[in-house]
Amino acid sequence: MLPIAPLNPRDKTPLFRQLHAQMKGLIESGAVSRGSRLPATRELAGQIGLNRTTVSAAYALLESEGLITGHVGRGSFVSGGTNFEHGSAASWNGAAAYSGPSSFSRSRPSELLFPLEEFRKTCAEVIASDDAASILQLGSPSGYPPLRRYLLEQARAEGVARESDDILITSGCQQAFDLLQRTIGQGTPVLMEDPVYPGARSVFERAGARLIGVPVGRQGMDLEVLERTIARERPLLLCVTPNFQNPTGSTMPLAARKSLLRITQAAGVMVIENDIYGALAYEGEPIAAIKRLDDTGDTILLRSFSKVAFPGLRVGWVIAPRPLIERLTETKQWSDLHTDQLSQAVLLRFAESGRLEQHRQRMLVAGRERLEAALEACAAYLPSGTKFTRPRGGMSLWVELPGALDAAELLPRAEREGVTYLPGRYFAVSRPQPNGLRISFAGMTPEEIRSGLTILGRIFQEELERVRAHTPLAEATALV
Amino acid sequence: MLPIAPLNPRDKTPLFRQLHAQMKGLIESGAVSRGSRLPATRELAGQIGLNRTTVSAAYALLESEGLITGHVGRGSFVSGGTNFEHGSAASWNGAAAYSGPSSFSRSRPSELLFPLEEFRKTCAEVIASDDAASILQLGSPSGYPPLRRYLLEQARAEGVARESDDILITSGCQQAFDLLQRTIGQGTPVLMEDPVYPGARSVFERAGARLIGVPVGRQGMDLEVLERTIARERPLLLCVTPNFQNPTGSTMPLAARKSLLRITQAAGVMVIENDIYGALAYEGEPIAAIKRLDDTGDTILLRSFSKVAFPGLRVGWVIAPRPLIERLTETKQWSDLHTDQLSQAVLLRFAESGRLEQHRQRMLVAGRERLEAALEACAAYLPSGTKFTRPRGGMSLWVELPGALDAAELLPRAEREGVTYLPGRYFAVSRPQPNGLRISFAGMTPEEIRSGLTILGRIFQEELERVRAHTPLAEATALV
Repeated sequence: MLPIAPLNPRDKTPLFRQLHAQMKGLIESGAVSRGSRLPATRELAGQIGLNRTTVSAAYALLESEGLITGHVGRGSFVSGGTNFEHGSAASWNGAAAYSGPSSFSRSRPSELLFPLEEFRKTCAEVIASDDAASILQLGSPSGYPPLRRYLLEQARAEGVARESDDILITSGCQQAFDLLQRTIGQGTPVLMEDPVYPGARSVFERAGARLIGVPVGRQGMDLEVLERTIARERPLLLCVTPNFQNPTGSTMPLAARKSLLRITQAAGVMVIENDIYGALAYEGEPIAAIKRLDDTGDTILLRSFSKVAFPGLRVGWVIAPRPLIERLTETKQWSDLHTDQLSQAVLLRFAESGRLEQHRQRMLVAGRERLEAALEACAAYLPSGTKFTRPRGGMSLWVELPGALDAAELLPRAEREGVTYLPGRYFAVSRPQPNGLRISFAGMTPEEIRSGLTILGRIFQEELERVRAHTPLAEATALV
Repeated sequence: MLPIAPLNPRDKTPLFRQLHAQMKGLIESGAVSRGSRLPATRELAGQIGLNRTTVSAAYALLESEGLITGHVGRGSFVSGGTNFEHGSAASWNGAAAYSGPSSFSRSRPSELLFPLEEFRKTCAEVIASDDAASILQLGSPSGYPPLRRYLLEQARAEGVARESDDILITSGCQQAFDLLQRTIGQGTPVLMEDPVYPGARSVFERAGARLIGVPVGRQGMDLEVLERTIARERPLLLCVTPNFQNPTGSTMPLAARKSLLRITQAAGVMVIENDIYGALAYEGEPIAAIKRLDDTGDTILLRSFSKVAFPGLRVGWVIAPRPLIERLTETKQWSDLHTDQLSQAVLLRFAESGRLEQHRQRMLVAGRERLEAALEACAAYLPSGTKFTRPRGGMSLWVELPGALDAAELLPRAEREGVTYLPGRYFAVSRPQPNGLRISFAGMTPEEIRSGLTILGRIFQEELERVRAHTPLAEATALV
């Protein structure tokens, strides 16, 4: 579903132009990627409660600008804006993201921090080992056995894997979501944080799940809303990112994790704990994983090497009760046979040799510095009235602009000045937040962070002044 | 659906024992893997036209042998037989296959042929290159750009990629099938070769496609049956492996490829050409790919490095018209973000440096020798009346036993004598061939091939004599 915010029929801008502006923002920001098919005009009209002619007019305008292309009988496709291949703008994983001086759109480590020399040594050791031939041979759908053993031992020591649990190596966390979505049926209610990582949302959306957003505050999911929503919607699944959630950066305190478990267990809701950022705690003590606190052992824990090591090597894992792991393993086998074995072996060696931990320590120092720079720059340069989260780890923070500014509308202007970010509606589940935006700081230097936020602050401030100057008094009084 | 061959109500073995024997064969051969859920007794009874009590009795017997476990309310699960993890028997990709002296069950290269020294050099070059940091960073869902360019140029030179085509790198051919199945709806009719590679069958089966098998002979798909089936079933898709088809090893001649295109184009059927074995032609000239012969350019071509290089490195690709590639790329992104980049870069370097071609030449010499050994041993040791295909490349040949011998039933005995293979019903789409079996020769030495087939020949011959001795004359005359 396209994340279209409610239009304003009282605005003097015609509705089709309002819709056009929003869609243009979605396309240009990469929220809707090149090659995607747009909903049929009838469908979109139904979705947002508009006349079909209005939607057709907006599509016609987009087509005249070369942003979409209509094919008779096949529908309209996005033909401009983001392009995976040319890396001209942000796509939702930040993969081929805009590469201007200040890209806040990529939730990934800086390549400047990659320990290339140690990586080279690790590879050389792996390919010189006696095991090289078996690494190159077809492997097991469960994962490279020595890596599985290593991760399972670590998980047992941490208390996040019980005797009744097993592990499956996946091609990154994203694949874990994709395997999990295949276990649910059409129309299954699934609860997610709102805003949320769009990669998780898309996966369940395409499975035909009925997604329900639960607002995320500075302490993670709003537990009162969670409890009410569970009572009303009877969901099967809940996805939650207790550590440094993407996009908000928020962390659930220990007590909140325990409450969440109490609520979900009472209602028989299965919990997927996405812990992809957990190893990147810049301050404070690490908080026990939900999986560890869960006496029933039913929680499904997702982790990955990608945020703390090398995202280009696609290795993640799932720890869950054995019957589920068996089912996921079977699905994994017909999805791609097994995860790449060279990368599994290299990452195992990187971890076992202690190099991963050394690298993580350096990542923590760098991350702390970048987080501080981002928080200071947000406070110093963003317009007064702006709210932003104060994460204690991870890669991103969340900004809410004042005065009903629309982050997607302002993005093209920011990009012209060499700064990019991902606008809020991109992360929305049930509750669009057009004034929200994600600032991913981990991939940039403190200097880039400061200069990028200086530019954004100026753009937002100017827009705020422009909007205020043009707001008719009549509208303000209408609110009384 | 479980591939259960019709039972014989006139046989003096009770029906539930016949069903039990078949299911035991499926479980012990790994055709139904450990952890899979069996159909409910009611469902299976409906499927094979039996009384539900008969099915329950067969399940009870399997449970008493520890092969399956029933869980109240959840159904019955396979608990014995194949186990991905322990590699005790064959799983369908041959991944954790039985590792006795003579395993004919693995359609994959021998690790003895891996050029480890050259692989080490290649890795060292890749990780020493200036591009190392970008390889380790998050990549593009389309694939590592230099690899895409290289493969597309090669494909253009060969005439299998047009200007209107594009390429997507996948995590092996298996993922290409998985991405393709997501573009079709429930109940979509899909034509496949019968017998066929079970990994392709499972993928479409789980997508809810309605699979229809077209028999494969020595010249590939039976085109008369194909034409009639298309007229009757109006399928959307056809999967075909024109070169060294798995499991039969058969190759479609040029004229047959052209006829296939004429038939499918007239009916508007989309063709998926699985060319995973195409580079392994041991004799004769290579025949033009269907994709190359297709004037419309609509054919979807799947290829992979895995059979000719290193199966543990999961890198394959799809060449197809650009709009389809865009759609698949979008799906790929939410499936696993992108294919592992280290392996993409290593395989590119392996190919560009000329090492892949050198290695392929050695694989051709070894493959030719193994194929010859297999053909000679089949002729020399299998019972008279046995039929087998005579492939000119690839990794497998297909055997049909005489006298209604059941290859799945005989497998446990063969395994006790240290030889394994995959039984025919494992590859069935619409037409079970219980007397068929796949002999994969590429992973074994000529000596292992000869000794394995000697053992199989003796087992089959003994069984044949036993069956003939016990066949009541009354039944033989009943045929008159």
